[in-house]
Amino acid sequence: MAATVLYPRVALIGIGLINSSIARAIKRHGLARSIVACAKSEATRRRATELDLVERTYADPAEAVRDADLVVLGTPVGTFAELGRVIGPALKPGATLTDVGSVKAAVVRDIGPHIPAGVDFVPAHPVAGTEHSGPDAGFAELFEERWCIVTPTASARPEAVERLIGFWRRLGSRVDVMEPAHHDLVLAITSHLPHLIAYNIVGTAKDLESVTEGEVIKYAAGGFRDFTRIAASDPIMWRDVFLNNREAVLEMLGRFNEDLAVLTRAIRSGDGRTLEEFFARTRAIRRGIIDAGQADPEDQKKAR
Amino acid sequence: MAATVLYPRVALIGIGLINSSIARAIKRHGLARSIVACAKSEATRRRATELDLVERTYADPAEAVRDADLVVLGTPVGTFAELGRVIGPALKPGATLTDVGSVKAAVVRDIGPHIPAGVDFVPAHPVAGTEHSGPDAGFAELFEERWCIVTPTASARPEAVERLIGFWRRLGSRVDVMEPAHHDLVLAITSHLPHLIAYNIVGTAKDLESVTEGEVIKYAAGGFRDFTRIAASDPIMWRDVFLNNREAVLEMLGRFNEDLAVLTRAIRSGDGRTLEEFFARTRAIRRGIIDAGQADPEDQKKAR
Repeated sequence: MAATVLYPRVALIGIGLINSSIARAIKRHGLARSIVACAKSEATRRRATELDLVERTYADPAEAVRDADLVVLGTPVGTFAELGRVIGPALKPGATLTDVGSVKAAVVRDIGPHIPAGVDFVPAHPVAGTEHSGPDAGFAELFEERWCIVTPTASARPEAVERLIGFWRRLGSRVDVMEPAHHDLVLAITSHLPHLIAYNIVGTAKDLESVTEGEVIKYAAGGFRDFTRIAASDPIMWRDVFLNNREAVLEMLGRFNEDLAVLTRAIRSGDGRTLEEFFARTRAIRRGIIDAGQADPEDQKKAR
Repeated sequence: MAATVLYPRVALIGIGLINSSIARAIKRHGLARSIVACAKSEATRRRATELDLVERTYADPAEAVRDADLVVLGTPVGTFAELGRVIGPALKPGATLTDVGSVKAAVVRDIGPHIPAGVDFVPAHPVAGTEHSGPDAGFAELFEERWCIVTPTASARPEAVERLIGFWRRLGSRVDVMEPAHHDLVLAITSHLPHLIAYNIVGTAKDLESVTEGEVIKYAAGGFRDFTRIAASDPIMWRDVFLNNREAVLEMLGRFNEDLAVLTRAIRSGDGRTLEEFFARTRAIRRGIIDAGQADPEDQKKAR
């Protein structure tokens, strides 16, 4: 596809895994003429410059967004209310404001009130990532073949929504449009609960006194290692996800606990039939994920 | 290393993922002169022959083990008591009997009484595997750089134990020797609980009415997919693991639930500090697994 500038000037607020991947992908596909970034820490600003990710860095988000045609919030969602307050008055009329947060209803709640007339607020969530953080962790291909969920606000102009959808498609994503509340429910089961459970089991293993940490690490290939990858994700980002999607996560946790009670009772009472039936039911989902191209790249390759 | 025949004749009881990998690795490293296999299903016997994994196949385990110098039980551990009864009288004096089961105390309990004098019973557990099953799923490199835990019985001669340890080293494994009960506790946390939790969360996701199975599959890249891999493992094998390591698994489940109650309360009460501290503690374990060379091959490569 020929390079088409979709947003002449892009301001990235935060330049971690996701926003630094966006910067790399924008450059590769020629979607902007200039990219700037805002980061709180001086070390991060310096690193973003060294990596040649952006033209200029700012410490002040209000300065960073001035004149930007697209603003992408890529900091933990707990920072969004204050960010909205600070950048709201500095946003250019006609600009699109979006984010990459893993929750959506709270984002609308926290940022919505600060959006001036003439600015299109189109929240989004690229369902992609790795367990690594920071500007060095990003890569241009991160979004390819991954889904990006867009949850447009009522006041956003349709052409602004379409443009943002086109932007994500140019980054290689498939795009779905959804209500924020439904997004939060879907992600509670496909992402938030898995992370919580992974953090929890790794924490349990770490605390065991009867088994040394050395053994947990040595024998991790028995299954445990699959959990440690997602439990190595950024703690602040995930703290904010759980604080901002409380109801859906608690709902999914309740269901999870009900199922676990059934399995626990089956183990305690030696009920092999219940165990076998439960274990056999879950295989089809794995097949579905591979068929949908959403397994991790190595597994996807092996399954071909 | 020059090919050295360690066991002239090897009999593999069951020819699924693990035993078919052993057959391939024995051939590659020249560790036996002849390999035979026993499988209950005719289709599996035919497939093992087509794949040229073994010289001959048997439906009757007693016939298969006659004249074997090494017998490897590779069927679900729930079959071991009956297998022991059937093959015990047919074992050749001087033969070594081992297994590849994921639990060890129950294996000693079920097989021990059937071992005739002059046969060395040396249970073992290669901590390696994939989510795939059957004779096609195996590969000769499966055990390389993975740990194999050997839990020798008191009556086994030291030279027989040493020979089996040497065998696993020749397959590329690192070997640890352990008491069966300690093995079962270590594996309960590093393997059995992770599998149970993975099966459970995939089951929870499958049953939701608010989120469709199609949505779960589409957005699996958000973390869920890491669980589906291990939840695609063989249901019968895992049923038998849980039925035969009940106490250790229930103990680990208890600890897991205690930790999960703490995290649940923190989410409900909006206690961000507890969440953040918990999430930050678990990162070091991931690093340890990578440093120990026990991450999955792709992650190991990326981390270099």
